[in-house]
Amino acid sequence: MKEFWSSRIINATPYTPGEQPRDQIFIKLNTNENPYPPSPMALQFMADALGPDLRLYPDPECLELRQAVADYHGLEVGQVFVGNGSDEILSFCFQAFFEPNLEIVMPDISYGFYPIYADYFGLKTRLVPLDEQFDLPFSECANAAGGVVIANPNAPTGKALSLDSIQRILNTNRNVVVIVDEAYVDFGAQSAMVFVKDYPNLLIVKTLSKSRSLAGLRVGFAMGNTNLISALCCVRDSINSYPVDRIAQAGAIGAVQDESYFQTTRLSIMKTREATVRKLTKLGFQILDSSANFIFIHYPGRSAKELQEGLRDKGILVRWFNKPRIDNFLRISIGTDEEMDALCVAFKELLA
Amino acid sequence: MKEFWSSRIINATPYTPGEQPRDQIFIKLNTNENPYPPSPMALQFMADALGPDLRLYPDPECLELRQAVADYHGLEVGQVFVGNGSDEILSFCFQAFFEPNLEIVMPDISYGFYPIYADYFGLKTRLVPLDEQFDLPFSECANAAGGVVIANPNAPTGKALSLDSIQRILNTNRNVVVIVDEAYVDFGAQSAMVFVKDYPNLLIVKTLSKSRSLAGLRVGFAMGNTNLISALCCVRDSINSYPVDRIAQAGAIGAVQDESYFQTTRLSIMKTREATVRKLTKLGFQILDSSANFIFIHYPGRSAKELQEGLRDKGILVRWFNKPRIDNFLRISIGTDEEMDALCVAFKELLA
Repeated sequence: MKEFWSSRIINATPYTPGEQPRDQIFIKLNTNENPYPPSPMALQFMADALGPDLRLYPDPECLELRQAVADYHGLEVGQVFVGNGSDEILSFCFQAFFEPNLEIVMPDISYGFYPIYADYFGLKTRLVPLDEQFDLPFSECANAAGGVVIANPNAPTGKALSLDSIQRILNTNRNVVVIVDEAYVDFGAQSAMVFVKDYPNLLIVKTLSKSRSLAGLRVGFAMGNTNLISALCCVRDSINSYPVDRIAQAGAIGAVQDESYFQTTRLSIMKTREATVRKLTKLGFQILDSSANFIFIHYPGRSAKELQEGLRDKGILVRWFNKPRIDNFLRISIGTDEEMDALCVAFKELLA
Repeated sequence: MKEFWSSRIINATPYTPGEQPRDQIFIKLNTNENPYPPSPMALQFMADALGPDLRLYPDPECLELRQAVADYHGLEVGQVFVGNGSDEILSFCFQAFFEPNLEIVMPDISYGFYPIYADYFGLKTRLVPLDEQFDLPFSECANAAGGVVIANPNAPTGKALSLDSIQRILNTNRNVVVIVDEAYVDFGAQSAMVFVKDYPNLLIVKTLSKSRSLAGLRVGFAMGNTNLISALCCVRDSINSYPVDRIAQAGAIGAVQDESYFQTTRLSIMKTREATVRKLTKLGFQILDSSANFIFIHYPGRSAKELQEGLRDKGILVRWFNKPRIDNFLRISIGTDEEMDALCVAFKELLA
């Protein structure tokens, strides 16, 4: 029954997030969370914010947090936007920068929310097929009519784009907004932040959910020209003036400022990733080059769906996408060394 | 400069929230926050949620919190929706239930965000003028083409609608969704919750920002038929799967379950409101009957804007709206007894 549903939603196909089990009996490698806890500084700043002032609205401009992010990246406050996770920010981007009849260019295989935003907001897309190696043929992203949306590194492949490729995309799309989703950039790709000062049409989106271990807190950032940031503020203030609560603002400042913890944990995840790749390669898996906190893997002659189900029976959750071209791959988040060892043991048993 | 802005936002008029000063030198009676801190149980539950699990995404379905709200109101889990403040939920309602060419009925004087949502989502409105006493002529709300949106008690007037009036609005609008925004209902109005079981087109929206002292946490609820709740989930999952973070979910459960604290603080605010009304009436103010945690007042022969500025100079923030019919009124939140005493002293000086 969909009585009373508007025409806007009656045929909508919403996003399906990865399973979030309510018990903790699983080794959870399915939603690219960080295996390490949030920074102690982030936790301390949140504890400090837990008090009587929660009766008051948060700073709608998130000034202190934006200053912290700006300082970290060498930007001005006006070049930083803060939202309730990078998903909210991406949804704002699709409202702020794109027109119904002008196609948005995006890879055919990328973050599943992009085409959902396009559909939901009544926008058209031009999907650029990744090549056989799952690389983006960047020259085919030129002259987008409506805009460009890419993830670097890409999801769910984990493959990074070079800065040179990104610059070519920027150079061939001067008149539309180019969004670079850097949710996973801290695990080995190069950030396009260096281009912000020269390209007023570049917007970079980041999140605290991955490299900062705060998926549970819902904070994302966008960085770019002040004009683009103002557009995002306009969307926000047409919907919900205060999407980022007081505790989230405080915790985010701690996470951004705790550089040593950030470096330690992200490097540790990258090290675990390389070790996991070596072990799984030995087992016979084919694995795409990953610059993310997950790997995208394939076992010749075996059904990825069956492997996923087999892992689930052994208490390990990984992600399988029922989508063309990638339905024989598994996306596996990088956990602790112990979790990845358990994964390898489980795979060995399944493949025996 | 609005280069790259979409046609959706280029002419948008966003909402302007009340001032949130970053220092605490003001007596802040301008945004209807609760003068009392959040419940100790809410703070404790949040402290318990502050830990390693913040690395994990929150429960996107907010099941535990929805169960707590359902238990409190005698509903099923499927009849409860949770969002990032009631503003986000209201914006979802305008997307979920209304059609571009079918007029939404709302009072001409009400919460300022309603017409902004309508404009932003390309919807039409039919504004029903409040009468001279700022009461809603409910018979004029009959047969809405697209839907009905009312606040009970209304903002910024504070005036309540009787349950009988609400039932008449429901009876004369069987084929469209009727949204009753009960942000302030706990301060003396009657909730339309009693009608949920009989009217599948009724949706009630509430917030933790007012009577539960948690404006800084960003949590709101919607309650109604499961079909309406599913529509809100569809909107959410087309935008941002996880708008309510782990700490907010935990704190909200504590706030909802701490009944004695809730009763003590809301009754205290109502008592302070009555005392304030008596004192300001003595000073010569005309004051609308308030069922909210604010009062809407007018001083014959004096400019409300000048009084607001005078109060600001004395360190007291109140809200003035530059809008037809109400631009000679001030909306003043109910603070502590001490804050309201300070307000009365300041008014005495200004009027002398």
